[in-house]
Amino acid sequence: MKTAVLGTGTVGRTIAPRLAELGHIVTVGTRDPEATLARTEPDAMGNAPFGAWAAESPGITLAGFADAAAGADLIVNATNGGASLDVLAQAGAENLDGTIILDIANPLDFSKGMPPTLLVKDTDSLGEQIQRSYPQTRVVKSLNTLNADLMAHPDRISDPGTLFVSGNDTDAKDTVTALLKEFGHRDVIDLGDITTARGTEMLLPVWLRLWGALGTPDFNFKIVR
Amino acid sequence: MKTAVLGTGTVGRTIAPRLAELGHIVTVGTRDPEATLARTEPDAMGNAPFGAWAAESPGITLAGFADAAAGADLIVNATNGGASLDVLAQAGAENLDGTIILDIANPLDFSKGMPPTLLVKDTDSLGEQIQRSYPQTRVVKSLNTLNADLMAHPDRISDPGTLFVSGNDTDAKDTVTALLKEFGHRDVIDLGDITTARGTEMLLPVWLRLWGALGTPDFNFKIVR
Repeated sequence: MKTAVLGTGTVGRTIAPRLAELGHIVTVGTRDPEATLARTEPDAMGNAPFGAWAAESPGITLAGFADAAAGADLIVNATNGGASLDVLAQAGAENLDGTIILDIANPLDFSKGMPPTLLVKDTDSLGEQIQRSYPQTRVVKSLNTLNADLMAHPDRISDPGTLFVSGNDTDAKDTVTALLKEFGHRDVIDLGDITTARGTEMLLPVWLRLWGALGTPDFNFKIVR
Repeated sequence: MKTAVLGTGTVGRTIAPRLAELGHIVTVGTRDPEATLARTEPDAMGNAPFGAWAAESPGITLAGFADAAAGADLIVNATNGGASLDVLAQAGAENLDGTIILDIANPLDFSKGMPPTLLVKDTDSLGEQIQRSYPQTRVVKSLNTLNADLMAHPDRISDPGTLFVSGNDTDAKDTVTALLKEFGHRDVIDLGDITTARGTEMLLPVWLRLWGALGTPDFNFKIVR
């Protein structure tokens, strides 16, 4: 597939090379490609400058959000959840219409300290906000319930656990589910329409506390039944 | 242990006989024991009248909330989450002080239709509200993340999954964890202090959607790692 990964942080840098490795065409979207490539210092999260990272990541092209999104079959929203709607606006509705948006972001609010709280919850979700803002796209919420390394490489743990898909379009969920299985995921539960993203976004608070309790982000939820 | 189970609904009626079966002394607490025993019709959830049920449940005594709580080593809050603080007030601080309160309720709000939303979330939890209201008790939040039948009989599914405990007192969490293992649970994760109950209470929205997607409440979360 022709894919765009919006976001140059840890999540984008983990998903993009995995898509390339699996044979998909990948363009990473950023606000200002020249500025992104001009950076020589690690970012706030300690990630290497994008240019240095990209030089070691074959098959990854960098472009502005709009250019990355244009013509993509599937767009991965790997941006900070608080910035996602702004980023999608920059990508432009004309470049989003007709595509599948795989929304893997969480609407986290770090402004009140740690652990972060959720910007929306229970009566709305980021997935729904994106679907409402771009009704001509088919939004599928998934992958937001586990660490980036496990998203892309579920075989890091012996039982990779369960993933969830939420979305209004069955074909789009089937496409995403097939992609998740290419990644190595085995158990994918279709929760229903995009409103069910409220449930998976609300997993983040317990995920954050489990990270603290277990001392590692290498864990996942599995639904035993 | 001398235990009290507050609440005569499905959850109380599942936990109480399991405690009795395991050799614990059990008193079920209700608002008005005479009125509870006088009922001859099924309740709103379709449960048999309490008296008919109790007659078939050896070892279960019914008492008012205060009498049930008095002298108990461990009190199980098996009431509707929206009514829990009112019920505990009826039990009386003098009867609660010094005990462990095992809070298995969820603060669900059914007033806005289905699925229910949460009365508090993310910045507070029912577990914290109880701990703040009764600082002389030791509140442990647990068991609120699965169906009543699986709480008491985890062997209904081949892998019973994971339970979580949240609380400020390590001894109280150890007592509860030992009790959960008597029930048949195997994997119990100590998430930390009672504020971590925010995480497990916020599991309910995805639990409700999983129930819809799977068509059965016989499932549980397992943390694979």
